[in-house]
Amino acid sequence: MSEYKKLTEQDLAAIEKIVPRERILWANEINEEYSHDELTATPSYPDLVVRATSAEEISGVLKYANQEKIAVTPRGAGTGLVGASVAVEHGIMIDTTLMNHFLELDEENLTLTLEPGVLLMEIYQYVEPKGLFYPPDPGEKTATIGGNISTNAGGMRAVKYGVTRDFVRGLEVVLADGTILELGGKSVKNSSGYDLKDMIIGSEGTLAFITKAILKLLPLPQKNVSLLVPFPSLAQAIGTVPLIVKSKAIPTAIEFMEREVIMDSEKFLGSSFPDNSADAYLLLKFDGNSTKEIEEAYDGVAQICLEQGALDVLIADTDERADAIWKTRGSFLQAISGSTTQMDEVDACVPRSKVNEFVEFVHSLQDEMHVRIKCFGHAGDGNLHVYILRDDLDEQAWGKVLLATMDKMYAKARDLGGKVSGEHGIGLAKKPYLKEDLDPAAIKVMQGIKKAFDPNNILNPRKVCFD
Amino acid sequence: MSEYKKLTEQDLAAIEKIVPRERILWANEINEEYSHDELTATPSYPDLVVRATSAEEISGVLKYANQEKIAVTPRGAGTGLVGASVAVEHGIMIDTTLMNHFLELDEENLTLTLEPGVLLMEIYQYVEPKGLFYPPDPGEKTATIGGNISTNAGGMRAVKYGVTRDFVRGLEVVLADGTILELGGKSVKNSSGYDLKDMIIGSEGTLAFITKAILKLLPLPQKNVSLLVPFPSLAQAIGTVPLIVKSKAIPTAIEFMEREVIMDSEKFLGSSFPDNSADAYLLLKFDGNSTKEIEEAYDGVAQICLEQGALDVLIADTDERADAIWKTRGSFLQAISGSTTQMDEVDACVPRSKVNEFVEFVHSLQDEMHVRIKCFGHAGDGNLHVYILRDDLDEQAWGKVLLATMDKMYAKARDLGGKVSGEHGIGLAKKPYLKEDLDPAAIKVMQGIKKAFDPNNILNPRKVCFD
Repeated sequence: MSEYKKLTEQDLAAIEKIVPRERILWANEINEEYSHDELTATPSYPDLVVRATSAEEISGVLKYANQEKIAVTPRGAGTGLVGASVAVEHGIMIDTTLMNHFLELDEENLTLTLEPGVLLMEIYQYVEPKGLFYPPDPGEKTATIGGNISTNAGGMRAVKYGVTRDFVRGLEVVLADGTILELGGKSVKNSSGYDLKDMIIGSEGTLAFITKAILKLLPLPQKNVSLLVPFPSLAQAIGTVPLIVKSKAIPTAIEFMEREVIMDSEKFLGSSFPDNSADAYLLLKFDGNSTKEIEEAYDGVAQICLEQGALDVLIADTDERADAIWKTRGSFLQAISGSTTQMDEVDACVPRSKVNEFVEFVHSLQDEMHVRIKCFGHAGDGNLHVYILRDDLDEQAWGKVLLATMDKMYAKARDLGGKVSGEHGIGLAKKPYLKEDLDPAAIKVMQGIKKAFDPNNILNPRKVCFD
Repeated sequence: MSEYKKLTEQDLAAIEKIVPRERILWANEINEEYSHDELTATPSYPDLVVRATSAEEISGVLKYANQEKIAVTPRGAGTGLVGASVAVEHGIMIDTTLMNHFLELDEENLTLTLEPGVLLMEIYQYVEPKGLFYPPDPGEKTATIGGNISTNAGGMRAVKYGVTRDFVRGLEVVLADGTILELGGKSVKNSSGYDLKDMIIGSEGTLAFITKAILKLLPLPQKNVSLLVPFPSLAQAIGTVPLIVKSKAIPTAIEFMEREVIMDSEKFLGSSFPDNSADAYLLLKFDGNSTKEIEEAYDGVAQICLEQGALDVLIADTDERADAIWKTRGSFLQAISGSTTQMDEVDACVPRSKVNEFVEFVHSLQDEMHVRIKCFGHAGDGNLHVYILRDDLDEQAWGKVLLATMDKMYAKARDLGGKVSGEHGIGLAKKPYLKEDLDPAAIKVMQGIKKAFDPNNILNPRKVCFD
């Protein structure tokens, strides 16, 4: 039996005193969407959904939930892949999508202050026309920034610019007891006590509720060029990446892709990719402020690729050509999903120089486990996205093969010095693998930290590494 | 009375079983150096010093100390300014300076693995001839990397590259109970559970003992140019900085300095600065891979400076000329120190656009408080270094004026949305100001985190925000 309170009409009445009734969903008013994320095997409904519009409302709701021992699940756009925003213990779900306002663009400090429900694509649309740049570039542009911060989302431009964590200067959060705290701020440097801000980033809503963020911006690079490089084999493509890094070029992004996945995508998009003659491709991007600077960088890289057996180097130096290629890359998840009945994913991250060994292993599992596996990812930062496809397997066979295949993949990632998740987080789905990965002493410390923030364990229970 | 055990010959005998006697200092063997850091008002000796050479030794010592409730203070090169490495509760001091080895330079992942006692200047000397770059650039080059990580040291290049935190990929740490943990790793991305690595960074040795670090490196920029820009007034100099940032140029560093401090430095170094005609200066650095790229960046900035009333723009494009200028900048702390009998410092960090207001306030305090105050700092990132000078004040008068002046400065920094410490940390000296700055709820969370890592409170007690 759950240790959490099942909500009653009485609780509804109490919450109505904090949030107007028209922004509360109760019982049948709760849409099916709220029971799962993008890839949930086991949906679960909250008892009540609050569509919050302010930190004060969230503070009030948490205070009540903390007193009454009600589980609280945060939810942004629901684009997660690991079940972090699924209300496994029912209770209250707080939906942040109405908190979608830009609060301040400070051009003298190059910071953007915004609410957690702003979508990633809205950030780009807002800052880029002003000549500013928010570098993190996760594939899912309809995710909220709150979700991106909660999972420390990475994306394609991490090779040059880093991940979400590197661009969060400050947060406003609500603690489980309703206290509103400001963490960090506009200042670039900070050595003033424990770094609570970075503890919240990537904690998947288990420590505090994010109600505001101050993001660091950069000047928008004035030029960029993409290179599409076909290779006779994936091993050759991926094997080239450490040499590119060693050459001291810094591409913005280095992605790898295979013909099969490209063909899925062509079908999905109904448009054709500029080249489909080769088995494998590297897709690179370079950015900067002068054409000459970028040309010098990519000339050297093109040379390295050709030396390593690349069949050609296709240069996309117009926005149109580059968009066509990156649109294909951006559609991979949906294209693969559309090619099967159900799927699950592995988001492991291995050292850059171990990507080839990991990908070869993943491929070998197709024959060994008799299951289709598709794979693409961020060759430049060692973060792979591997999809295991159900196709026409029955429930029992699928459950068995999925578990066995995942076990093997995570064990291999661990052997290679990798991590369970590069950017999607742990949520519910990857919890067993994280628990295997972590030293029991580290889990004990994490339990202590959880208790320090949320002594009654109401915030997103049973996620990350907690039972 | 202290809650910690005072060491006896029996404890010495126990520790000799973990660390050979010749690397233990006991009683009179403990040099005066071990009783203070660079700026300690109240020295305090440890009972015993261990000159550790491995994580295993440190693990053994901590396990013993944890059982016996002995305070343990970490110490690197002792260059701190806030008393973080002073053994206020006596007990055991662990000196890391013998753990000064480079363990691995991985050019395929651009990472450097090293022991905590390696000095900052040794890192530059090791990586730069190989065409690699460790961007953090704190003024004190004889500090250890362990100390830099423990305070999240910042430095001059933070404007473009960020601070120490941004370049620490992984840590090996020893917990209070002796458990050795690996946190993070070579992988660029990581969304696998709570971010314990970033919790350790900047925690000033209060949560765990750092025994190894994996640093992120970049390719070494091939060119750099420095600009020295004299202004008729400091307000004009500093007021120009937000305009530079707004112009979307990204200098590597933007420092401000005043004639008085430069003259102290000329005296200290016995060499003359290229220009001393003006009251105030901005010193900027630009780096990149092509002369043209850098020229374009600094031409725009030079234009802005002249529009804002700069008297000239002096370009240092040879290593020799640039070195002379940066050497002067690098000597400020020692030069100011040499000009008085005793001093204390404020390391506040305010938003970039508030630096002028803060500096004007600091200057106004000289008259109000009847005390000499010198100030220089990182205009580009809002981190000021302010020195309050004792000169010929007697003990009582100095104590009084120092306290009153600091109270006013920290209150002002707080009003401007700043932080107590940009890069030097809190240690012992800034504890009252941090406690005033933090929300009581944040302190409570920090106490919980401390307890999660170090339940017996043996690691560097009474530092940061703890009594």
